[in-house]
Amino acid sequence: MNPQVKVKADDTRARIMDTAEALFRRLGFAKTAVADIASELKMSPANVYRFFSSKNAIIEAICQRCLAELEDRAWAVARSRGSAAERIERLVLEILSYHKENLLTEQRVNDMVLAAIELSWGAIRAHKEHMRMVFESILREGVEAGEFEPINPRETSRLLMISLVHFCHPVLVAQYLQDQEDLEADARAAVRFLLRAITPRA
Amino acid sequence: MNPQVKVKADDTRARIMDTAEALFRRLGFAKTAVADIASELKMSPANVYRFFSSKNAIIEAICQRCLAELEDRAWAVARSRGSAAERIERLVLEILSYHKENLLTEQRVNDMVLAAIELSWGAIRAHKEHMRMVFESILREGVEAGEFEPINPRETSRLLMISLVHFCHPVLVAQYLQDQEDLEADARAAVRFLLRAITPRA
Repeated sequence: MNPQVKVKADDTRARIMDTAEALFRRLGFAKTAVADIASELKMSPANVYRFFSSKNAIIEAICQRCLAELEDRAWAVARSRGSAAERIERLVLEILSYHKENLLTEQRVNDMVLAAIELSWGAIRAHKEHMRMVFESILREGVEAGEFEPINPRETSRLLMISLVHFCHPVLVAQYLQDQEDLEADARAAVRFLLRAITPRA
Repeated sequence: MNPQVKVKADDTRARIMDTAEALFRRLGFAKTAVADIASELKMSPANVYRFFSSKNAIIEAICQRCLAELEDRAWAVARSRGSAAERIERLVLEILSYHKENLLTEQRVNDMVLAAIELSWGAIRAHKEHMRMVFESILREGVEAGEFEPINPRETSRLLMISLVHFCHPVLVAQYLQDQEDLEADARAAVRFLLRAITPRA
């Protein structure tokens, strides 16, 4: 394929994903057909199928794009100024705010997100490993700076992720919000509590 | 109602719940009708309705019975021998094994459990508060014995519960099992990590 045709195809794929995402959010994933997406784009369904083999393939592509965006935001926090402890707190708040903005509709998990979780479990597993590496990288800097005890950054990043799932799993975030808890305050308190486990005592 | 009639009614309620639970597990909650439960018991549906106003009322009663059983087991662990740290670890493993035995079928969350969560959110919230009190009671003893730092047992029990949700929420336990992780080993590692936050350093 020549480069110009490639750019055009990528552009069409992105437009299909944008339109599909808007419809999935508005009508729900189950109630949106490929024909609806095509009609919104003034395309034929056959043309949509040239780019995506099925509605499931579209939601998987949207899911991967979302996860990649969250990973970019996470690395930006890891590279920002501040102590390791401050950056870990900021990272958890960033993940939480991402979920609130993108995965929930009126404090409920969108059926689009549930379908994405169901269909893209492999991609989500890879994403969790990616996020773990972001935590590991901040922990390693904290250990090197003497801010944390000489713990194993890899194992500790795994335990931190397990312990923070309450703020990083869309289904739990939605349930928590329904109970009208102050998630940001709890996230801050939880991070400070967890980091006490690896911070030298004065 | 005279006492004997009352005992008989309680007995019939329990028999309906047992039969319904067996059918919900075997056929699924959605696919089981009150008529199926009645027929299995050789009763008329009208007779079942004398005890429960709907299928939802049956699942709610089953859910409350399960939660009460887990609470009893939790208090038994709290009152058992051993240091506070050992009992907290045992408590988390007990909750985990309860979920694996009762809430999952072939490493998947039964639709009966999902229906129970949906319909009994108030009961589950009360159960979470009850379980928090079990953690608080062990923490308080640990503080009094000098095993833990002089932390606030109430607030710390809340943070512990938040940090241990990975092992105490049936949906997460099921997902974790699908990824074939060693849940017991992770639960032990997580508890030890968390308790470092409140344990005086040597």
